[in-house]
Amino acid sequence: MDFETIKPLLREGQKSKIVLLVMDGLGGLPMEEGGKTELETARTPNMDALAAKSILGLHHPLPLGMTPGSGAAHLGLFGYDPIKFEIGRGVLSALGVDFDLQKGDVAARGNFCTVDENSVITDRRAGRIPTEIGERLCNLLMEKVHIPGVQVILQAEKEYRFVLVLRGEGLSGEVSDTDPQMVGKKPYVAQAVAPEAEKTAEFVREFVRQGTEILAHEHPANCFVLRGFAQLPNWPTFNEVWGVNAVAIAQYPMYRGVAKVVGMTVLQAASSMEEEISMLEQNWDKFDFFFVHMKKTDSYGEDGNFDAKVDIIEQVDALVPRILALNPDVLIITGDHSTPAKLRSHSWHPVPVLLYSPDCLPDGITSFGERACAHGSLGSRFEATDLMLYAIAHAQRLDKFGA
Amino acid sequence: MDFETIKPLLREGQKSKIVLLVMDGLGGLPMEEGGKTELETARTPNMDALAAKSILGLHHPLPLGMTPGSGAAHLGLFGYDPIKFEIGRGVLSALGVDFDLQKGDVAARGNFCTVDENSVITDRRAGRIPTEIGERLCNLLMEKVHIPGVQVILQAEKEYRFVLVLRGEGLSGEVSDTDPQMVGKKPYVAQAVAPEAEKTAEFVREFVRQGTEILAHEHPANCFVLRGFAQLPNWPTFNEVWGVNAVAIAQYPMYRGVAKVVGMTVLQAASSMEEEISMLEQNWDKFDFFFVHMKKTDSYGEDGNFDAKVDIIEQVDALVPRILALNPDVLIITGDHSTPAKLRSHSWHPVPVLLYSPDCLPDGITSFGERACAHGSLGSRFEATDLMLYAIAHAQRLDKFGA
Repeated sequence: MDFETIKPLLREGQKSKIVLLVMDGLGGLPMEEGGKTELETARTPNMDALAAKSILGLHHPLPLGMTPGSGAAHLGLFGYDPIKFEIGRGVLSALGVDFDLQKGDVAARGNFCTVDENSVITDRRAGRIPTEIGERLCNLLMEKVHIPGVQVILQAEKEYRFVLVLRGEGLSGEVSDTDPQMVGKKPYVAQAVAPEAEKTAEFVREFVRQGTEILAHEHPANCFVLRGFAQLPNWPTFNEVWGVNAVAIAQYPMYRGVAKVVGMTVLQAASSMEEEISMLEQNWDKFDFFFVHMKKTDSYGEDGNFDAKVDIIEQVDALVPRILALNPDVLIITGDHSTPAKLRSHSWHPVPVLLYSPDCLPDGITSFGERACAHGSLGSRFEATDLMLYAIAHAQRLDKFGA
Repeated sequence: MDFETIKPLLREGQKSKIVLLVMDGLGGLPMEEGGKTELETARTPNMDALAAKSILGLHHPLPLGMTPGSGAAHLGLFGYDPIKFEIGRGVLSALGVDFDLQKGDVAARGNFCTVDENSVITDRRAGRIPTEIGERLCNLLMEKVHIPGVQVILQAEKEYRFVLVLRGEGLSGEVSDTDPQMVGKKPYVAQAVAPEAEKTAEFVREFVRQGTEILAHEHPANCFVLRGFAQLPNWPTFNEVWGVNAVAIAQYPMYRGVAKVVGMTVLQAASSMEEEISMLEQNWDKFDFFFVHMKKTDSYGEDGNFDAKVDIIEQVDALVPRILALNPDVLIITGDHSTPAKLRSHSWHPVPVLLYSPDCLPDGITSFGERACAHGSLGSRFEATDLMLYAIAHAQRLDKFGA
């Protein structure tokens, strides 16, 4: 749905409140043939009772069969088609380390790597150096590199990964990668891929010149490669698109970051799921759209820990009554994508979604699980990007179209 | 579906007959948690028996979550994407008062309003003057305004609303509103928004000049504002698109009007639902597509009168055997949108749809209600604009595509 079609329909001055509760990587698979998924296994009396008053379905974060990354999956839930609205790799990396990226900054994802005497890459991850070494190298580069006209900031991620941020006037993200993404090649020379990026490309080449010299005698990480140069996108904000005042509550940087990209107010990091709900309660009067993100379902899915994922789902279920006690006009419970413990990774499987509203027509599904949701009235082919419009419809925030 | 794709597939000389029976605002909601909708509550033995021989589903008049107006909702049922095919506000108003709009006429929606001594609008509805006063003012303006080169026609709607029609050569609807749609502003000056509308804009300005003078000493409606200048659209006709000879049978002007916009033959207004079915019977040999519109389900929905809406549905059910006695090749029973008595307004909820044909594959659903339909083989995400193609397919009016 085109944002421009919706804009004239948004009602002003509505007071209704919407909660979007995301259990990251919620969707799952049975570990054995004939078994149950994590969500089907979990005892979720609160969500099941809510299901009986809700409409359910399975959503697809992306076209059928595509597995989304975290950024793309959340954009879909926020109503931004992830195929059309792409966040640059560098920006995603900066968000992932909680870097306070500003409008105009250019961010890139860096790898410390090993090169031979001919500058040919022999190991793209420098033997997966420990994070402490990555941090030391970042600090070393920050200290020694000096480029007039631009501020150079490095922040270590895990192991060999880091984020490079250039801050200054008139920068552009339209710069090509230096990372050939294979061994046996020399790093590429960064080039402007749009005229307005000439200055930025020259800054990058200068950073590479100085940085390569500084690391020349380090071991095994004696070089680095950069990719995904990008700036914060200039998209319509979530509040503009949906006519709400939105806030994000999350424990982990990436999710606060994606919320920030679409212009939500982002609260400080919570330290537990319980604290997230407390923050929801404390901020209930200040906002009208609440994105609440629970991470650990995904973490345990990635670990292949079926039981721990089940346990987290049960813990979230126990928090649902506190949300309902706030009397939201719409409560959505879903995941951003599936992360079956069986696969130990994100997957393409559709994701259970429950939409509760006093003005929905309950579809007779009385439990919250993948196969129950497949029979719900949202259907088993529900596109994640349709969710927000349906939410604001149920929150009575839309005027009718046409006379 | 693109009309151009269908065109070469249309079979000529087919005799099969299709009835589209629309209960306006059919879809509903339970008044209380755990209750039934209007349609689920109604005793509909005839429709239930027909359901058992039919395919069912829930249709969406517009993208999920959007609530349609009457015009848009009917266009969807007729197979015209309402987002793409938009009827101008002025034309809709003219249709709504049964004005016999001609090709080339320009229609606008008018409000009588109150302005202060500086021509600033103080009340956009002039205190909701009674309809009789609106009629008197329309007649006064018709009598006194004289603009060489164009005929000016006014027709009162309810209260402060009226329709302005300009009739003449070389007119265009590309004229901007004079209605600022808020108080505290002066009416805008109408402007041509396309070069071909210069003459029309000047006619409008002259009408405003004369009309404002004529009303200057009236009270409280001492001025007027105009919006939604538009002409009858130049779309492919329903008969061209679907290869049928269509007729519309309806009690209310708006629905006969929308049928007229797509070029259907429109019979005179029926005075009751029974008379509509008699007109269907009398005209059975003359046409092969019959749009039959029942209004009161919507009216009682808007009134919040659950029981009366149930009663109307039961009355319609009692008429179904008379339709079946005509042996239609396809009978569709549906609504144009939902109007739950609980919400007292049009809503975004999907709409029950039943398609009967001797050559459909019944899907095992044996009652006609929202939640039964959600499990039908048309699915719960059926797009209203897909309905017509499926109807003419079941009427064996389509050749196969490709060799």
